[in-house]
Amino acid sequence: MPGLYLIPTPIAEPFVLPEYLKEIRCFVVENLREARRFLKWNFKDLDIDACLFLEINKNALDINEIHVFMKNAMAQNSDVGLLSDAGVPCVADPGAVVVEKAHELGFTVHPLVGPSSLLLALMASGFNGQCFAFHGYLPIPENEQIKKIKSLEEESSKRDMSQLFIETPYRNTKILQQLLATLNPATRLCVACDLGAATQEIISKKVRDWKPEKYNFHKRPAVFLIYAR
Amino acid sequence: MPGLYLIPTPIAEPFVLPEYLKEIRCFVVENLREARRFLKWNFKDLDIDACLFLEINKNALDINEIHVFMKNAMAQNSDVGLLSDAGVPCVADPGAVVVEKAHELGFTVHPLVGPSSLLLALMASGFNGQCFAFHGYLPIPENEQIKKIKSLEEESSKRDMSQLFIETPYRNTKILQQLLATLNPATRLCVACDLGAATQEIISKKVRDWKPEKYNFHKRPAVFLIYAR
Repeated sequence: MPGLYLIPTPIAEPFVLPEYLKEIRCFVVENLREARRFLKWNFKDLDIDACLFLEINKNALDINEIHVFMKNAMAQNSDVGLLSDAGVPCVADPGAVVVEKAHELGFTVHPLVGPSSLLLALMASGFNGQCFAFHGYLPIPENEQIKKIKSLEEESSKRDMSQLFIETPYRNTKILQQLLATLNPATRLCVACDLGAATQEIISKKVRDWKPEKYNFHKRPAVFLIYAR
Repeated sequence: MPGLYLIPTPIAEPFVLPEYLKEIRCFVVENLREARRFLKWNFKDLDIDACLFLEINKNALDINEIHVFMKNAMAQNSDVGLLSDAGVPCVADPGAVVVEKAHELGFTVHPLVGPSSLLLALMASGFNGQCFAFHGYLPIPENEQIKKIKSLEEESSKRDMSQLFIETPYRNTKILQQLLATLNPATRLCVACDLGAATQEIISKKVRDWKPEKYNFHKRPAVFLIYAR
């Protein structure tokens, strides 16, 4: 059976792929330009123009297009590589529908070890890693956002659960202010910023001990975590 | 400031550590024997007997012992390495209290990229990776287990959330039967088994399409995922 290889891409440091992946000729990618560049950087002698690419970084994801692409690869017994833009595909990144289709068509699915900012943030937070949840983005309207923050805090305390979410980087300062204004002083808050980069900063402390003016997370990719005991 | 390095260990394939870690002389480890063997395998010329080790794989985790160990390392401006048994520390593995203490004492925390069976299983499931939760082990008494499975399924459907959990490997067959008997036929169930090993098997399909007699997960490490839409 052909395989679907879930291929990580770098989040900060360069990331070297295993050699056997250079045999793959069919790719589903979040961003065509980035994917080509990354593959070429890893496999200098790869004939990139002989490769087939399907881009899924579109507003309207065309399930039918994915179906046709995967079905053709299956008919030709071709392995497929799946790449998103930064980190592992399918986790806080697109790709899950491609994997779903792969299972349906009978591909063997091979997830590869690589960087995930969520996993790194959870490890580095010091919060509970035996029970945790990732919620994507919080709602933007202020009243809904406050309500969501409160409900995450309550659920964290009730279920002993670490709560992870992300924010569009230019809104980091605003959400940090909202978190500090809304959460209980004894609740723990972690911001894990620029993970894997030289500028990495991971601050994890109780809300009451945060001095937000000491930090500038503006426009820097960050993962937010809250944990209430 | 000294650093706390969160050091991954192999889950199946050998895992090579970055060279700069061989300067570390203080380690907090889940299992002394395994940790020494793994460090020695990576760094042939490491004088392992000159290293300090604190084992945290004990029934009663002594927070005070961790505090003293970390405080001494801080006083000597020594970096500390944290290793658990398989995969990244602190995620479905002990270590979070060490990281919490490190933040408290002013260590810089450095999470390293490495294998996590949870992350690999989520990627490979084809389920929602924009919203997910990990719940550790389900309760063992049958009625409580059934109740928990049903509540996870309901929550999955309501919040569009992938639900991850694990089981003691010798109970895999039993929990699979319970899941198939309890879940809705249209709910998706994934079992990701022996991740990273040559025997890796990842089955992801609707409950109604499972033929449990085709699979034998007995005593093999596995991650279970459910996803109801």
